[in-house]
Amino acid sequence: MPSQESQALEDLYHRLSKHLGSENVGLDLHRILLEELGTVSAEPTDVTYEEVKCPGTVRPAIWCKPLSASPSRVILYLHGGAFSAGSPASHRKTAAHLAKKAGSHALVIDYRRAPEYQFPKQIDDAVAAYKWLINDKGFSSQRVALAGDSAGGNLTVATSLAARNLGLPLPAAIVGFSPWIDMRLTGKSLKTNASKDALMNPEAIQGVTDLYVGGASLDDPLLDLLHTDIKGLPPMYLTAGTAEALMDDTIRLAQHAKAAGIEVQMELGEGMQHVWVFMAGNASEAEETISQAANFIRSKMG
Amino acid sequence: MPSQESQALEDLYHRLSKHLGSENVGLDLHRILLEELGTVSAEPTDVTYEEVKCPGTVRPAIWCKPLSASPSRVILYLHGGAFSAGSPASHRKTAAHLAKKAGSHALVIDYRRAPEYQFPKQIDDAVAAYKWLINDKGFSSQRVALAGDSAGGNLTVATSLAARNLGLPLPAAIVGFSPWIDMRLTGKSLKTNASKDALMNPEAIQGVTDLYVGGASLDDPLLDLLHTDIKGLPPMYLTAGTAEALMDDTIRLAQHAKAAGIEVQMELGEGMQHVWVFMAGNASEAEETISQAANFIRSKMG
Repeated sequence: MPSQESQALEDLYHRLSKHLGSENVGLDLHRILLEELGTVSAEPTDVTYEEVKCPGTVRPAIWCKPLSASPSRVILYLHGGAFSAGSPASHRKTAAHLAKKAGSHALVIDYRRAPEYQFPKQIDDAVAAYKWLINDKGFSSQRVALAGDSAGGNLTVATSLAARNLGLPLPAAIVGFSPWIDMRLTGKSLKTNASKDALMNPEAIQGVTDLYVGGASLDDPLLDLLHTDIKGLPPMYLTAGTAEALMDDTIRLAQHAKAAGIEVQMELGEGMQHVWVFMAGNASEAEETISQAANFIRSKMG
Repeated sequence: MPSQESQALEDLYHRLSKHLGSENVGLDLHRILLEELGTVSAEPTDVTYEEVKCPGTVRPAIWCKPLSASPSRVILYLHGGAFSAGSPASHRKTAAHLAKKAGSHALVIDYRRAPEYQFPKQIDDAVAAYKWLINDKGFSSQRVALAGDSAGGNLTVATSLAARNLGLPLPAAIVGFSPWIDMRLTGKSLKTNASKDALMNPEAIQGVTDLYVGGASLDDPLLDLLHTDIKGLPPMYLTAGTAEALMDDTIRLAQHAKAAGIEVQMELGEGMQHVWVFMAGNASEAEETISQAANFIRSKMG
């Protein structure tokens, strides 16, 4: 049973779903609505911010700099928002809470979004930002973690794969909060949790998937993440709520990664909604999940 | 001629006006849309934030704490948003830019909003926060400034009046960015600038005014700010853009204040839109206006 504070997230999702489901919602309003995802996080204390233009970002990326963090560690944060919405601004606080607990900085990039830009442009942008961190900004890859939520959770895995394929040194860890993985929409939880999930429904998921995939083949190794060879990817911390339509995406990704010999720590949040870490600073479940993910990152960064 | 960067504000206002003018926009969507006002400001560097529950605030207020600021100085920031929208979140960056340049902290409060709460509840809340600062948090009134934009600009004046009427020591200065003053809507610029102002139009202004005023008399001294006796109020820094429908509100408030013996510094931004300081960190005009307002605050805080 989620805490009373976490109910606020469900309330937000119900409000947004109502607007998102209206006939007149176009792309601009869709994006404005999803910016609201950031409103339920509390401001983390003792963190400063700085906008930066870097590769892989349209509008400036945001550096999140906890005063107490080591500047030699960084979380490259890939925001969610259905591949088509969300921004560094909407996910600044979530990334900053994670960074503060991990003792690192975070960089939240503004990758190109669908439908103006489709697969694999989002991955290209994340790879460009990753290369900038390790080649231009001097971060050791072993002091970089990739983290993301929802669509951004997908991108953490796809970006690591793309980096591996390019022969780049890999990051120390991957964190996926409620990652959106299966573009074929075959997860059983899409149906079994349809009435519990306050935000995600199969029609909306299909629509967004089409926007992202565009004309690409679902067999593309960077799209077919549940079947592609992911050997050698970094250790993963993955979460899903048991009320989530996308719960099976996390469970199956965890199985696939373990079968490939990757260390996986999976957290299933009882009764929790999609990306409950948005409640960072305001709900105990979010605090706990962020602490665990941060500890995972710390342990892998050495 | 506004800078290219400041055109981004006009673009935002056109986008918002389109959505705000649609038939289906209700209160919830109205508020979601106006949260976008904060998206055009850059993150100021070297500022930390902290949420705080204090009198006069529904959801937590936000402390903006520039690392270099004196913690004995504070700007009580009253956000705009048509008395019915806006929040500490939407105005955090604007307040933080001003605070950083003024060498002070800022407190952005979440006063009760119309139409659920009407005049004078917003003023009551701002007075409660002001009393908390000087009575409970130990700030000298001479180290407190009131600042606000649009509806919040109205509230800076009305709150100072209410404080004077209560016999409280007055703040050191008032800053009003594009303040919305005349609830009778008699300013000529409402018509002469109607085609230039990208956000504010007479119908919308009338609608919002009705929401705020409720059943009160327009003769109420805290509503009739252009005719009420405002003797003894603190020095004022007031701005308006020459493209603004509300330009005459600023000009007439400045005249009324000067006639009452109050020191007034008025800045008319050539061709500028409503509350162009939202472009803080991104457009030269916003930087300049915030610098001037901050210098004014510094000079009055002594």
